[in-house]
Amino acid sequence: MSVSEKEVTQAETGARTAPIDREKLVRDMAAIVGTEGVLHKTYDLKLYEYDGSVDKHLPEVVVFPRTAEQVARIVKYCNREQLYYTARGAGTGLSGGSIPLRGGILVAFTRMNKILEIDAENLRAVVEPGLVNLHLSQAVAPYGLYFVPDPSSQKACTIGGNVAENSGGPHTLVYGVTTNHVTGLEVVTPDGEIRHYGGKATDAPGYDMVGLFVGSEGTLGLVTKVIVKLTPLPPAVKTFLAIFDSVEKCSNAVSGIIRNGVIPAALEMMDNLMIGAVEASSHAGYPLDAAAVLLVECEGLPDALEQQAETIEDICRREGATEFRIAKDAAEREALWKGRKGAFGAVGRMSPDYYVVDGVVPRSKLPQVLAAVGDISKKYNLPIANVFHAGDGNLHPLVMFDGNKPGDLQKAVKAGEDIIRMCAEEGGTLSGEHGIGVEKRDMMCFIFNEDDLGIMRRVRQAFDTKGLCNPEKVIPTPGRCGETRIATARKAQETYEREDMQAW
Amino acid sequence: MSVSEKEVTQAETGARTAPIDREKLVRDMAAIVGTEGVLHKTYDLKLYEYDGSVDKHLPEVVVFPRTAEQVARIVKYCNREQLYYTARGAGTGLSGGSIPLRGGILVAFTRMNKILEIDAENLRAVVEPGLVNLHLSQAVAPYGLYFVPDPSSQKACTIGGNVAENSGGPHTLVYGVTTNHVTGLEVVTPDGEIRHYGGKATDAPGYDMVGLFVGSEGTLGLVTKVIVKLTPLPPAVKTFLAIFDSVEKCSNAVSGIIRNGVIPAALEMMDNLMIGAVEASSHAGYPLDAAAVLLVECEGLPDALEQQAETIEDICRREGATEFRIAKDAAEREALWKGRKGAFGAVGRMSPDYYVVDGVVPRSKLPQVLAAVGDISKKYNLPIANVFHAGDGNLHPLVMFDGNKPGDLQKAVKAGEDIIRMCAEEGGTLSGEHGIGVEKRDMMCFIFNEDDLGIMRRVRQAFDTKGLCNPEKVIPTPGRCGETRIATARKAQETYEREDMQAW
Repeated sequence: MSVSEKEVTQAETGARTAPIDREKLVRDMAAIVGTEGVLHKTYDLKLYEYDGSVDKHLPEVVVFPRTAEQVARIVKYCNREQLYYTARGAGTGLSGGSIPLRGGILVAFTRMNKILEIDAENLRAVVEPGLVNLHLSQAVAPYGLYFVPDPSSQKACTIGGNVAENSGGPHTLVYGVTTNHVTGLEVVTPDGEIRHYGGKATDAPGYDMVGLFVGSEGTLGLVTKVIVKLTPLPPAVKTFLAIFDSVEKCSNAVSGIIRNGVIPAALEMMDNLMIGAVEASSHAGYPLDAAAVLLVECEGLPDALEQQAETIEDICRREGATEFRIAKDAAEREALWKGRKGAFGAVGRMSPDYYVVDGVVPRSKLPQVLAAVGDISKKYNLPIANVFHAGDGNLHPLVMFDGNKPGDLQKAVKAGEDIIRMCAEEGGTLSGEHGIGVEKRDMMCFIFNEDDLGIMRRVRQAFDTKGLCNPEKVIPTPGRCGETRIATARKAQETYEREDMQAW
Repeated sequence: MSVSEKEVTQAETGARTAPIDREKLVRDMAAIVGTEGVLHKTYDLKLYEYDGSVDKHLPEVVVFPRTAEQVARIVKYCNREQLYYTARGAGTGLSGGSIPLRGGILVAFTRMNKILEIDAENLRAVVEPGLVNLHLSQAVAPYGLYFVPDPSSQKACTIGGNVAENSGGPHTLVYGVTTNHVTGLEVVTPDGEIRHYGGKATDAPGYDMVGLFVGSEGTLGLVTKVIVKLTPLPPAVKTFLAIFDSVEKCSNAVSGIIRNGVIPAALEMMDNLMIGAVEASSHAGYPLDAAAVLLVECEGLPDALEQQAETIEDICRREGATEFRIAKDAAEREALWKGRKGAFGAVGRMSPDYYVVDGVVPRSKLPQVLAAVGDISKKYNLPIANVFHAGDGNLHPLVMFDGNKPGDLQKAVKAGEDIIRMCAEEGGTLSGEHGIGVEKRDMMCFIFNEDDLGIMRRVRQAFDTKGLCNPEKVIPTPGRCGETRIATARKAQETYEREDMQAW
């Protein structure tokens, strides 16, 4: 064995034990990125201690590089001074990926937000990681192109963050999540070198390093350029809303549509509580008495869409839809989407706080899983509204709580953990698109054993030999998987074997 | 540093130095897989020393496991006895991935060829790695589904081999190559444990181990089950042939079609020499005097196809197509495809031997690259016929030679190397879909430096701590990148920087 557990532990302790001279640190960083590129006052740092999740931690300093060379110098400095470093985009992440959990240097990519090249002919763009997701689609729209991944946070979140978290969105059902839309990366690896993986082609020789980086949550290095795949804008779009008096009928319609042949661009489901929240906030015209609604969007050539609309209406009615609405124009379409896209905000109006859970289950298990979420809601006495990327079984229960009520946050977190454990037990998985980060790090034990995690640790060390890059994320510390694993993983394993790898 | 170069070297020498007791080996293997599951006579071994590439090496023994548990026992045995092991599917690989370059145990997956589950509702199947690619599509056809990757060898090649090589095919242009169609794997990692990565969902928590395994060419472990994505069969298909009197016009039509918005399912280009070969063999009706032909296939709803056909014809005629044919029925469609799918065989009729080269260049550089291939043909005085997956710039020059003529094979290999170097210099890459294997291992130096390769070696070691799994493949041995790299990589790097990451 060339990499022993002992070495793993050494790498975990590669950081500085001596105290940090903060004045010197600020001076040294200013020498690399300029004085205006460094934040160090406590007031400023406080703005960078959190993201969209519930954890937080202060960095020693926030630096704003403008070039890959500056990033490389920062990383080399961290190696020399044994300092932790963590990348940050817009801080919209939902699992704590950009929180500097052990302090050190927070590398903010806000100033590296340029589009370097639009290569319409080859359907590619080369962009900097700090570019806002929506700005990319806006910039390539004149070429008749767009960038597919569209997380709800797309007005704020960055492409670099999308790469780190392998972000999805309502429209990734047919075209896939971020990993399917990134073909090349420039990264500063933890040795401080600038490396190029992949390129404009869809396949690269050797191990798929681009694929490995996408979704690695900033633990393998810092991305400094991204080559993204652009997709032609659909010639036409049609949006429908189907209304159901039972969750089961709605789920069956989802399965029916998927099996029908032409997969819609989006297939979103909302339950009664979510419908109420959305309607109160955005007046999208959703019926308040429906058990569930299904928002369907199809793309393609106009004639084809007519056919598709008929087929989807047939399926929905056969499965018992009580009503089927087609958006007649852009305004109606907008209204239907406004409800969905504003779902999180709508819950924010109903409840002082909410906790977004992200899990995945087989599509066929949606009805029973939703019932189980209802039980968990009763158990903790916290309302839970549901919105699903139904097409790929990705659920987002929103657990409502009041952060000012003692114990409420803890209850919400426990409820989320129960939901994720249930997803794992039902042959699903821990995360659909929000990542593991710190939030679900210990839940990794639900589905991986200590040896599995050992391999992941060694993959991480293949890049981050000193253990300084975004510490304490994704992979639990050795020995962390105790009793929880034994109980839950075994149960998941049994489900797994019993159903002959119906494991999702 | 937890993994030093010294350790890398140790891992490289983890294999047995003591002589192998072959009788005992055969007995021990028979104890695991049964006597009928072991081949050991020289006559038998000779059938397993090669694949579709030009290299060969005899294994000590060939074993045919039937279960993952047997595979795990074989790997544990190899660890105990310090023996190399290599996986083999159908042996149709074109870069030597399944050749046991240092002997040891060849694990043939021929008997693990079952479809374990067809989950039509979730668009998934669970299959064993020895399943023949085409058999999968045939088995799921009654459900209106198919498996997208369709390499030319699909009548023989296995799903396990497709996973190892990240195989493509003419129809992967719009739906992507194998990595886009595999969502879960059961693997026996080199520690001899059975592990499950991913599942039926499209995203998995932690590092993307499924993505890392796909295309790792059998160097990270042995795949024992594959969860594949199934795709609805298109409601209708239309096939066209456009004929051009210049390669440039044909290339421009390719770019025009891609930019138009709806990407065809297939977009294949052939040059004049290939047209001649194909026509002589299959009488597909290709015009012998054309400089290039373009085979286009579109899928979708019938009405949409009419529109698309018109658009594509417009583009081709605008770019100077001298003729545009639409296959009127299934028979005509079949005839057009027979030409393309039989291209390699057709060249086999014209020349005693041929060497298939696999490289990638930006689509926009197709004309100049084809001219350069012509120059290389003249330089070595060997005819080279060209067939492209034009839509993604993946070229397959077929270098014709006579293996019985002294020096001819060597000339062909040198010509192939020249072509690949030229692809790298043009901002392309080493391999589109045939893998690196042993064939292009040293060419990795064209695009990666010693430190880049060091990271890959450590990723490999994260799984294969003893260096026994499919040795001598993909990653060159340390220090191997000498003068070649200095000359070529620098040139490629310059191109890269000059064109601001127009690197493909």
